[in-house]
Amino acid sequence: MTEFELIERFFTRSTSRALVGNGDDAAVIAPLPGYAFVVTTDAMIEGRHFLPTLDPVKLGRRLVQVNLSDLAAMGAAPKFAMLSLTLPRLDEHWIARFAEGLWEALDEYDIQLVGGNTTRGALSLSMTAIGEVPVIDGRAHALLRSGANIDDELWVSGALGDAGWALGCMTGAIDAQATREQIAKYESPSARVSLGFELRDIATSCIDISDGLLAEAGHLARASNVAIDIEFTHIPTSIRDWLSTATYREHAKRCLLATGDAYELLFTAPRSAHDVVAALLRSEGLDGASIGRVREYATSGLVRERVQVLDSTGRIIDFDSKGWDHFA
Amino acid sequence: MTEFELIERFFTRSTSRALVGNGDDAAVIAPLPGYAFVVTTDAMIEGRHFLPTLDPVKLGRRLVQVNLSDLAAMGAAPKFAMLSLTLPRLDEHWIARFAEGLWEALDEYDIQLVGGNTTRGALSLSMTAIGEVPVIDGRAHALLRSGANIDDELWVSGALGDAGWALGCMTGAIDAQATREQIAKYESPSARVSLGFELRDIATSCIDISDGLLAEAGHLARASNVAIDIEFTHIPTSIRDWLSTATYREHAKRCLLATGDAYELLFTAPRSAHDVVAALLRSEGLDGASIGRVREYATSGLVRERVQVLDSTGRIIDFDSKGWDHFA
Repeated sequence: MTEFELIERFFTRSTSRALVGNGDDAAVIAPLPGYAFVVTTDAMIEGRHFLPTLDPVKLGRRLVQVNLSDLAAMGAAPKFAMLSLTLPRLDEHWIARFAEGLWEALDEYDIQLVGGNTTRGALSLSMTAIGEVPVIDGRAHALLRSGANIDDELWVSGALGDAGWALGCMTGAIDAQATREQIAKYESPSARVSLGFELRDIATSCIDISDGLLAEAGHLARASNVAIDIEFTHIPTSIRDWLSTATYREHAKRCLLATGDAYELLFTAPRSAHDVVAALLRSEGLDGASIGRVREYATSGLVRERVQVLDSTGRIIDFDSKGWDHFA
Repeated sequence: MTEFELIERFFTRSTSRALVGNGDDAAVIAPLPGYAFVVTTDAMIEGRHFLPTLDPVKLGRRLVQVNLSDLAAMGAAPKFAMLSLTLPRLDEHWIARFAEGLWEALDEYDIQLVGGNTTRGALSLSMTAIGEVPVIDGRAHALLRSGANIDDELWVSGALGDAGWALGCMTGAIDAQATREQIAKYESPSARVSLGFELRDIATSCIDISDGLLAEAGHLARASNVAIDIEFTHIPTSIRDWLSTATYREHAKRCLLATGDAYELLFTAPRSAHDVVAALLRSEGLDGASIGRVREYATSGLVRERVQVLDSTGRIIDFDSKGWDHFA
């Protein structure tokens, strides 16, 4: 099998909405009238973003979901994707399984794969995902990081810490067991695409949690020029029991606040929209929750942190790590 | 320096044409009214697509040019880019120099960098480049691979073999010297952006030569369902003298016909447009030439090759390699 046969066989399908689809030097695509494109790109490196033991079907699915998570955070409807594959060898069985997972996730949202490239090297996968949002009066009707207002509620769309906990157990970083659900949360994340879409008319700011709650809350706070208080006990998680054990407390805390891979949405909305947001989360089948509030950012005085985590008595929980820095 | 500081410092600039630019979960961009986007993505892996000794300034420039070459082959005007960087470490000096070359090439075409990602791993660079073409009567006014007509002339926009020859000398694959011009052709290719733009109203099909003349001519021939004859002695090259030496003949032939990295355009045009194309090449300062012609593809009979290379007496030159397959 040559490189060209591989692309032809596993990664080429007709692309009804593209003006020029797969198989030329580039694809030609246009948003629907009155819409703009939302474009994001994300890479996954073996050993860095996924374990070498990960089932290639799950890997294909995950590559799509991780990219869709960024579109979800913008409130965009996914439309097109480009795939960049670096493979150590042409293993037909592996590629077939990877393609199976990839198409499963693409088909779920009716996304058309319009191009990409293949090369040889250490296993790494990169995708560019393209979605659409309406343009109203010259402005993109999208969820941004920058719209949070003082006194807004902070929400998360689902449980945090589960994926990080599962990863710790799987790599042996901690000597504990992960449940099947926690492992699934790590291996097979689901982008909150339809939630993001619905939040366009409700939320004031939004980001997806790929790098840990504190880091992402910090991004929201800086972009909106506000500060954020997070109530530790309100964060939905399946690892809460571990927090009360002496051995696992610190690790569990880190999973909740600083590990990535959750791919939940973190967003702010007016307090007046509380019931609407709660009903929306229920209708989406998500166990999200209100976990904090937006306050003014004090540029002077003692409290100059953008993000604070409070315990049930209102005391600030000391926590150093600012989340995932790929080079830290 | 953290990952976020790195992105902020070296890869973030204001993006006047984007509805949402750098710094959110994704960028929001729209083509001008009456236009569509042309989207391509290309990866470069150290040791595979460039030598570890390559100056990072040239590497930054090269990443842009290699992607623009695909846009040029579509006749698109470059507008936006996304960058995906995988780095073994945060080497500030290296990154500063890479960014210098990158911006130099982006600024040459007024391209806005609207997003990307950074991660840690073996050095690899990936870019998604986005250009524009007009849409006329619902169809993209772009150069495709599929429009070649019987009796069209085949043109190349500049010298072939130079880059491959330089690479062979630099890696020690052959014991010979490359000129400074040949090395520059390999290290600092120039995408034929303005030529591609002008060819939209003249050429019937077009592709860029990233993988070798024979392979690319084969793509054109298959997409247009024609066959192509190439006249070996007409191919512009600076390595012709080596073709008459016993020691270097075979290697030089391979450089001319099968090595990549030339990033010239290969295109077909009606014979009636000969003088117009020749004048266009001259006005662009390019030493391109007419190197063959399009003929009917015989589905029966003896000659079933899509692409034939003929010597000055019209005899078929036997040549096995079909160009660059990353996994061959």
